[in-house]
Amino acid sequence: MIALDFKKESGLITTVIQDARTQQVLMVAYMNAESFERTLATGETWFWSRSRQTLWHKGETSGNIQKVQSIAVDCDADTLLISVLPAGPACHTGHTSCFYRAYARKE
Amino acid sequence: MIALDFKKESGLITTVIQDARTQQVLMVAYMNAESFERTLATGETWFWSRSRQTLWHKGETSGNIQKVQSIAVDCDADTLLISVLPAGPACHTGHTSCFYRAYARKE
Repeated sequence: MIALDFKKESGLITTVIQDARTQQVLMVAYMNAESFERTLATGETWFWSRSRQTLWHKGETSGNIQKVQSIAVDCDADTLLISVLPAGPACHTGHTSCFYRAYARKE
Repeated sequence: MIALDFKKESGLITTVIQDARTQQVLMVAYMNAESFERTLATGETWFWSRSRQTLWHKGETSGNIQKVQSIAVDCDADTLLISVLPAGPACHTGHTSCFYRAYARKE
């Protein structure tokens, strides 16, 4: 077992969500210990909303849940990479991925 | 131009680095405004090391620089997804990706 380091980010682990089929990076969110436990227990992603300060079951209202396929831990055990099968778009804007905008510098 | 939100993480933007060819997620690191500017100016990744509290040009000592191919911004402009061509492994352990371990629960 790998002991996750929830201390570095005041109790939170940075989590990258990637589509298991397309390899597209869908979103980045944060898990506290409880949301990580629920993710393991349910096989669907749960996060901690920093803005709302609540547990957040991804897809609970939109239906766009994410079925966990695998979980990888980074070298210093403070970041997770979770491969999922998403039931719909990851982004609240309706885009498949939250990373739908290319960065363009102001000229 | 998209105004990046460096305020949410005390001056830092979470950055996901993905291999442009394989789509493998290589690492997650943090950029402050200066490292982001240097990344744009040089076309190679620069980060802010939270543990060492210094600017960090990826590959400066190892040679494993990362050539930036594209930069995407997430919906709330506090996270970047940077697609790179890496000159070598991203991880200091020598692994291609920092996410080389599967999470396994203690039974």
